[in-house]
Amino acid sequence: MRQLSGLEQLDGIARGELEPAPMAELMGFELIEVEEGFAAFEGEPTEALNNPMGTVHGGFAATMLDSAMGCAVHSTLPAAGAYSTLELSVNLVRPITSQTGRVRAEGRLIHAGRRAATAEGRLVALDTGKLLAHGTTTCMIS
Amino acid sequence: MRQLSGLEQLDGIARGELEPAPMAELMGFELIEVEEGFAAFEGEPTEALNNPMGTVHGGFAATMLDSAMGCAVHSTLPAAGAYSTLELSVNLVRPITSQTGRVRAEGRLIHAGRRAATAEGRLVALDTGKLLAHGTTTCMIS
Amino acid sequence: MRQLSGLEQLDGIARGELEPAPMAELMGFELIEVEEGFAAFEGEPTEALNNPMGTVHGGFAATMLDSAMGCAVHSTLPAAGAYSTLELSVNLVRPITSQTGRVRAEGRLIHAGRRAATAEGRLVALDTGKLLAHGTTTCMIS
Amino acid sequence: MRQLSGLEQLDGIARGELEPAPMAELMGFELIEVEEGFAAFEGEPTEALNNPMGTVHGGFAATMLDSAMGCAVHSTLPAAGAYSTLELSVNLVRPITSQTGRVRAEGRLIHAGRRAATAEGRLVALDTGKLLAHGTTTCMIS
Repeated sequence: MRQLSGLEQLDGIARGELEPAPMAELMGFELIEVEEGFAAFEGEPTEALNNPMGTVHGGFAATMLDSAMGCAVHSTLPAAGAYSTLELSVNLVRPITSQTGRVRAEGRLIHAGRRAATAEGRLVALDTGKLLAHGTTTCMIS
Repeated sequence: MRQLSGLEQLDGIARGELEPAPMAELMGFELIEVEEGFAAFEGEPTEALNNPMGTVHGGFAATMLDSAMGCAVHSTLPAAGAYSTLELSVNLVRPITSQTGRVRAEGRLIHAGRRAATAEGRLVALDTGKLLAHGTTTCMIS
Repeated sequence: MRQLSGLEQLDGIARGELEPAPMAELMGFELIEVEEGFAAFEGEPTEALNNPMGTVHGGFAATMLDSAMGCAVHSTLPAAGAYSTLELSVNLVRPITSQTGRVRAEGRLIHAGRRAATAEGRLVALDTGKLLAHGTTTCMIS
Repeated sequence: MRQLSGLEQLDGIARGELEPAPMAELMGFELIEVEEGFAAFEGEPTEALNNPMGTVHGGFAATMLDSAMGCAVHSTLPAAGAYSTLELSVNLVRPITSQTGRVRAEGRLIHAGRRAATAEGRLVALDTGKLLAHGTTTCMIS
């Protein structure tokens, strides 16, 4: 893994040649597309992801957006480069339920500095095209 | 459920008399304590929550903190009161791994207005007492 | 003022027919463009806006972005409609100095719900086109 | 300045022996107290800081909190150490007006890592003790 660039690592995951994140499997979403500075995950939320109020827990949108935004940053790193998320902000703009159907989280790099990078993300319901959540992240590069 | 105050509902979950959040069961954490304006969850992260880099996914801290901060707000609501999370910010200050052991997320109400409320949270490793992550949330009350 | 829609009010300010924000005058920036869901402010930072380290205080970018994002939300409101900012997040990606020259903050509506709205903003140096800061806001609508 | 520790620099400003931030003078607030990991600013908002709606612009709370939180981080740095703010989040929980009277912003270090630090802040009206705004920041250390 350490001999591959970030984009090569993520490409390997998207093509099923490298192991995906256990967390993505647990929540039922997967990396669908990756380019330099861009990543998209898709999944379909089920009742197993609910909060006690019967809607999907806000942690689901946070986790999908964190994945998409983090991979957008990761995709720009050279071999042996590493990043860690310092800060993650998420706005939840519409409720998500197990009836929402398939959702897509896209992350896009905003700024890549020498030591820090930022990215933004959108989570959309594929059936209706409606925005469900959006976010921003600040990562440290090393 | 709708005839109970927020505190009564959460108390029922903490005592095992009401159903917990499916998401909490999926991620292996549970509501341990709740008072008016305060809630604490505990759990022990496993490799099933990892990202592809072999550490626990940032979505775990985000989900635990969202739970603790949301419940801190929920605990202040009367029967038939409802809230929804508008915004969630999380700072990840130390890596979490499956060796971190048991962790505790505490949420505390900061401000309760008529239509909006804010809360803050801390996620700590119980073995070492070290801070792992912290956060803030903005909720809408209805 | 209360008989004008948000867009009409902001249009009046942009055309110099209504009073601008005293804060904008204090910091030396002004509303340049406004459309439904969009607003742009421009100004030129001076040493009067510095922090003790000799660069422009982060509060300058925060204030310009808050103005642009808040007006993007305001521009969508009917006569007698009002909004208040609940939350403001700003990422500062490059230093700003009194040599940066003229800067432009653009705000764009992301989501307008019945009771809450979100917007995003970018602050750019006009000479170089470089991104200086970006942000997100959550507003309450009433 | 570069031969003094962060705490010594800030102490010099608080005692009037070193130049304060021009931005603080512009907005009418000043550094009142500083300790390792803590800083407090006080000021009294006037109509010169208003937005077009006749209340104090959100940029005032953002600037005071950014000052207090940034100085809480700065106070922990050795001579020749430097920091820059990567991210700033502010929750505005009550309106501020030119009738609010004197306000106090306190910043407190939450976490100081080798390369990044976080701090939190509270802005309070001194007459009533009421919380007006609160915030969090993520800084890079160099």
